[in-house]
Amino acid sequence: MGKEGFFITLEGGEGSGKTTVLGRVTAYLQNRSMPYRITREPGGVEIAEKIRSIILDPAHTAMDARTEALLYAASRSQHLAEVVEPALREGLTVLCDRFVDSSLVYQGHARGLGIEEVWSINRFAIGNRMPDLTFYLDVDPEIGLSRIAANQEREVNRLDLESLSFHKKVREGYQLLAQANPDRIVVLDANRPIHMVEQDIVRTLEERVLKGF
Amino acid sequence: MGKEGFFITLEGGEGSGKTTVLGRVTAYLQNRSMPYRITREPGGVEIAEKIRSIILDPAHTAMDARTEALLYAASRSQHLAEVVEPALREGLTVLCDRFVDSSLVYQGHARGLGIEEVWSINRFAIGNRMPDLTFYLDVDPEIGLSRIAANQEREVNRLDLESLSFHKKVREGYQLLAQANPDRIVVLDANRPIHMVEQDIVRTLEERVLKGF
Repeated sequence: MGKEGFFITLEGGEGSGKTTVLGRVTAYLQNRSMPYRITREPGGVEIAEKIRSIILDPAHTAMDARTEALLYAASRSQHLAEVVEPALREGLTVLCDRFVDSSLVYQGHARGLGIEEVWSINRFAIGNRMPDLTFYLDVDPEIGLSRIAANQEREVNRLDLESLSFHKKVREGYQLLAQANPDRIVVLDANRPIHMVEQDIVRTLEERVLKGF
Repeated sequence: MGKEGFFITLEGGEGSGKTTVLGRVTAYLQNRSMPYRITREPGGVEIAEKIRSIILDPAHTAMDARTEALLYAASRSQHLAEVVEPALREGLTVLCDRFVDSSLVYQGHARGLGIEEVWSINRFAIGNRMPDLTFYLDVDPEIGLSRIAANQEREVNRLDLESLSFHKKVREGYQLLAQANPDRIVVLDANRPIHMVEQDIVRTLEERVLKGF
């Protein structure tokens, strides 16, 4: 059996520049001739998509917060089993746009279910599979939201419309996780112009690829 | 605010006589003039029904065992929030046909995910809400399955078709839980004729109602 691939995740609040950075990481992996797979939950996985459609159905106003968190975990576990794990076994570097940290931060911290509580169901969902490396794009919510407002091409989604205090809670949650996981989570100051963030990412990837993550 | 109702659950393998016993408990509560609500998951709760339809869709042969366990927990949490909790708050005695123990036994023990593991996600799903009393109808799987085979009116379901060794694992799981929770779980020998089981249930209910559970 060949060597397992690296598992990299990308995290950050609204307007932090994740999409732009994703393209930069992809370009880096191509230049390095590292075979990769880019994905995000639910990632076209039929069962996971169906679970998401229950979460996102606007008719479901009565959905309990715990039910929602369990459904996100269920979708994650299926996407992991069908997409991420097979790709890693094939030796591909897997780059996933949002993963377990998003649930810990959004449902656990910002919605108030508790990071430890939400971690308990996600630990079940992901087994022993944690990212080898996580890039967290740290942005001041006021800057992030103003970027979204200025970007005509990007559709405004449900999360964009949350209050500023919610986005501040999200940032606080990410910062707590980063402090608790300094080896795994690399914090990038995303208040700067995006090309500077990209330089940091490439430098980090160079280091990690050299030492085998 | 008035007094909260009692929460009673009914558990047991295939052919253990749960449905018959359910009717007997209902009659008892009526005679006692105790207001009650009979339910079972997903209990007509729209979100919970949709979650169940994903679990039960025969096209989903690729469903990961962890995804399935998380979906059962999600369905449970919604049914609890929409049906069980409001009824208990109204002071009704709630009688639920299968609850958390079924997941611990079927997914945790018999399917091999681990009772502790499955408990971790269910603890999240149900919060602090555990049954005040659980009747476990303990039946030898060979007797249970022969009862089902003899009952022309009952449709054979997916679980009935599992191997005998699976049903033995189920019984073993229930017995482990009963040993670990002697105050909550009342074990009834359901190998006997069902009217004898009913007598035991009525006696237990009399005792519990007198001492307030």
